[in-house]
Amino acid sequence: MKNEHIDIAIIGAGVSGVYSAWKLKQKYPNKKIVVFEGSDHVGGRLLSVKPPEIPNMVAELGGMRILENNQKLIVNLIAELNKELSSDEQIELYDFPVDQPQNIAYLRGEHLRLADFTTKPDKVPYNLSFLERSNSSGTIIVNAIEQLVPGITNPDLTENERLEMTRKATFEGVPLYKLGFWNLLYRVISGEAYQFCLDSGGYNSTMVNWNAAAAIPWYLSDFGITPKYKGFKYGFQQVPITLGNFFEKIGGEIRLNSKLEAFEWKDDKFELVINGENLTSSQLILAMPRRSLDLLSPSCPKLQEIQSLIGSVTPRPLFKVFTTYANPWWRVAGFTDATGKYVPLQSGRTVTDLPVRQTYYWPNNDGTPAESGTSMLLASYDDGSNIGFWDGLRPQRKKAWAEDLAHTKIEDPFEGEAEENEASAKSDGLNQKWSQYKAPRKMITEMARQLRKIHDLDFTPQVRSAAFRDWGEDPYGGGWNSWNIGVKTWEVRDKIVHPIEDCPMFICGEAYSDAQGWVEGALQTADIMLEKL
Amino acid sequence: MKNEHIDIAIIGAGVSGVYSAWKLKQKYPNKKIVVFEGSDHVGGRLLSVKPPEIPNMVAELGGMRILENNQKLIVNLIAELNKELSSDEQIELYDFPVDQPQNIAYLRGEHLRLADFTTKPDKVPYNLSFLERSNSSGTIIVNAIEQLVPGITNPDLTENERLEMTRKATFEGVPLYKLGFWNLLYRVISGEAYQFCLDSGGYNSTMVNWNAAAAIPWYLSDFGITPKYKGFKYGFQQVPITLGNFFEKIGGEIRLNSKLEAFEWKDDKFELVINGENLTSSQLILAMPRRSLDLLSPSCPKLQEIQSLIGSVTPRPLFKVFTTYANPWWRVAGFTDATGKYVPLQSGRTVTDLPVRQTYYWPNNDGTPAESGTSMLLASYDDGSNIGFWDGLRPQRKKAWAEDLAHTKIEDPFEGEAEENEASAKSDGLNQKWSQYKAPRKMITEMARQLRKIHDLDFTPQVRSAAFRDWGEDPYGGGWNSWNIGVKTWEVRDKIVHPIEDCPMFICGEAYSDAQGWVEGALQTADIMLEKL
Repeated sequence: MKNEHIDIAIIGAGVSGVYSAWKLKQKYPNKKIVVFEGSDHVGGRLLSVKPPEIPNMVAELGGMRILENNQKLIVNLIAELNKELSSDEQIELYDFPVDQPQNIAYLRGEHLRLADFTTKPDKVPYNLSFLERSNSSGTIIVNAIEQLVPGITNPDLTENERLEMTRKATFEGVPLYKLGFWNLLYRVISGEAYQFCLDSGGYNSTMVNWNAAAAIPWYLSDFGITPKYKGFKYGFQQVPITLGNFFEKIGGEIRLNSKLEAFEWKDDKFELVINGENLTSSQLILAMPRRSLDLLSPSCPKLQEIQSLIGSVTPRPLFKVFTTYANPWWRVAGFTDATGKYVPLQSGRTVTDLPVRQTYYWPNNDGTPAESGTSMLLASYDDGSNIGFWDGLRPQRKKAWAEDLAHTKIEDPFEGEAEENEASAKSDGLNQKWSQYKAPRKMITEMARQLRKIHDLDFTPQVRSAAFRDWGEDPYGGGWNSWNIGVKTWEVRDKIVHPIEDCPMFICGEAYSDAQGWVEGALQTADIMLEKL
Repeated sequence: MKNEHIDIAIIGAGVSGVYSAWKLKQKYPNKKIVVFEGSDHVGGRLLSVKPPEIPNMVAELGGMRILENNQKLIVNLIAELNKELSSDEQIELYDFPVDQPQNIAYLRGEHLRLADFTTKPDKVPYNLSFLERSNSSGTIIVNAIEQLVPGITNPDLTENERLEMTRKATFEGVPLYKLGFWNLLYRVISGEAYQFCLDSGGYNSTMVNWNAAAAIPWYLSDFGITPKYKGFKYGFQQVPITLGNFFEKIGGEIRLNSKLEAFEWKDDKFELVINGENLTSSQLILAMPRRSLDLLSPSCPKLQEIQSLIGSVTPRPLFKVFTTYANPWWRVAGFTDATGKYVPLQSGRTVTDLPVRQTYYWPNNDGTPAESGTSMLLASYDDGSNIGFWDGLRPQRKKAWAEDLAHTKIEDPFEGEAEENEASAKSDGLNQKWSQYKAPRKMITEMARQLRKIHDLDFTPQVRSAAFRDWGEDPYGGGWNSWNIGVKTWEVRDKIVHPIEDCPMFICGEAYSDAQGWVEGALQTADIMLEKL
């Protein structure tokens, strides 16, 4: 290993890292290309684990879906991978269940069905204006966006046309990129409508004051225009794992548990310090989000040169908690429809303004709902200020990375009765175990309390097992990143992939893309980078 | 100046710094004691300026009041200072106006009078429980606290007895200091009651998930037990300015615009770098909050040794905006009482869940309300997550300090028609000018819009002048600091004043006290420190 020289060193085995590695190795089969990953596995913020006792489900502790009709890069990549995969290794998708009319919205202490938003506006406990009433939060936001940028919600526009429109658009003479999304929304909808959209939308960080020129097209592609969500039968992590395998098959190398500690650009090469060892590389790709770059900066002069680029986005903390039960108890919280037929609560999600925020009735890996037997909830998918509530019930962030652990050790973990079957996970090619991601006991207790409130049930069965991943932890800093106000996002996006003219340092990943928080964004910036490289 | 040696170097001319300096100089008249202050004035987060055109008002851009019946240290200090001050220099207090029944609460799109909380519970747009209804937010919180720590709201208890009780108290077997205030409140009040208290209480950061053992007595001394607020006729900043003058009069020295950049403890003395110049001191007092210590840490090895102590509190951003008008237009938004008499809106504050949050009808400097002519509002006193809204309308934090400016330069400031009369401020011994604290134009425009909504007025007169101070800016990081969960606050408080046994480095200030956010806390830790020194 002494004086080892690498042609292209890639830091980070998230999807943008292994994708770039594979593409580059195909193009330059004779170059020595190595991916260094700080944790013990490939995948970054894609993390799929098999829950105990439930063979036909996969818990997505990280990213869980794609938008099939808007995200061409990931759709095409899956097709490309499937061509090379044998028939029993195919990446298979299922229709990710969307919200059902019978699903619950527990808002301001009132139990509503989602259908009530449009059919029983008097039950909606928000003081909405005449024009806002009877609309879902999605409609209110889309209408607001149309007021702000007339014409932009035309469904015939392409993603790029919408991006172009917001780049040029102004509000009262000020370009949108200089304005905050929250500030703008406040000009066209009531404070109550904003709160309704925030509470019933399920997310906090998407409606904060981020760059309006980025937020508007982002919002429209996610929520605005008839989205078609797809989930992954064997887990989304199958994609980066496959990319990693393909890369290794053609001679690439992935080194896990290999933490980049410092680098310097000197005499036309990079001097890297990885796990305390020195090596050199001709080119360097940092396939990582902002917080990871921030952690590196103090020991990397070349990163200090580009602080203003790195600082152009904000990491948004976000966590997921999955819980399993002996039976899908939520089915009793459905309703009887007009024809007298009982419609169970079974798929999509329920929202609340309690700190739990969003609960997904997790589907089987073909997209059908669990009907009996051991079943699973994504008990909480939580971001933004509500995370503060859970701060009191979970370990401190930043500790694990500083202590060279892959993720935080939970001091008082929830220990349920379910027994893990490791074999089942391995059969799907996944390498991370459910039991590696224990949840804090106090958190599970409080969540169970809130789930009872939301579902108006005095009793819910014991949790058999729980898994927890907090993406606010170092080195991720957030589940996604959002563009800051005042940034010309399209310029930074193109600039940061190769930020310093005469230095072959490249940066890619979701953080600095047009599709922040999506794998699509990771692939977009990787493609822009590969073109420059 | 070469090789200058100082006996006691004090960093920071906030109240804890100049108070300590004065006390030490009295005790050690022959020692060379110097206060170094990074900004251009004495006072820290006490900052009093005279608005233009209103001779009988002082705008408190920082701390604005004391609790006369609970805060013995500041009350006694004022008495002590007044003994030495001539009759025309006395520090004079007035009764700081409290909320009036006719004041407005604009919550969830509904206009209420504060009196409605208790007299017309059906109008209160929160889904409160049977026991919660008809109570003000203060009562709900005090009742919740009594449930959590039975007996603690007994008015006969002293401040110290309450502190002692919460130190020993447990909830479900867990000591309170290991629990978050938000988490605990959620166990004894409804989610709606929590939201009601947050919205109508006017503050966000006081109800976040901070150390419950600290939050409970803090909350009771501020809100719980018949508080008697006092304001300062010539501005609160008169206190640190007087302390500074007294210190200089007996031979002490204050050096403004003197920024400590680094220090090291070596050969039994401190080597300090101040504005790029080297000097030494035998003892060192850091009279500053957490964020200032964080900014220093990278260049100060002794601070790196005590990271866990420094990190035991969280700075809470907070800002104030004052606006002036040709007349007190808010008086028309009063009501007609049962006897047919019109009661104007004139003193205390109005609260809202809009991002403006709290508006104070600013009093004359004898505590009486403005009845006619040019008048002033504390248009917004804002903390916590709502600050995110204003982030889009104000300059970035952290810039000014890094660029050696006393505070942020506003690029597009609000310029009103009022003309400043500098002479009037100087006559009160104040040294900071209103016009040094310009507000962003966009912020004032949006605030005027929200003030119209809150007061249900289609028209309000033009703002004649505005002043703005954001205490989230470096080097303060926050208007106050709150203890983190898991910290034995009473141990850290006593430890951090002299954190390293054999090194004469001392730390004091509001941040690590039992009365965070109050001058009382600054004096408390200064006294503990002076005893050890």
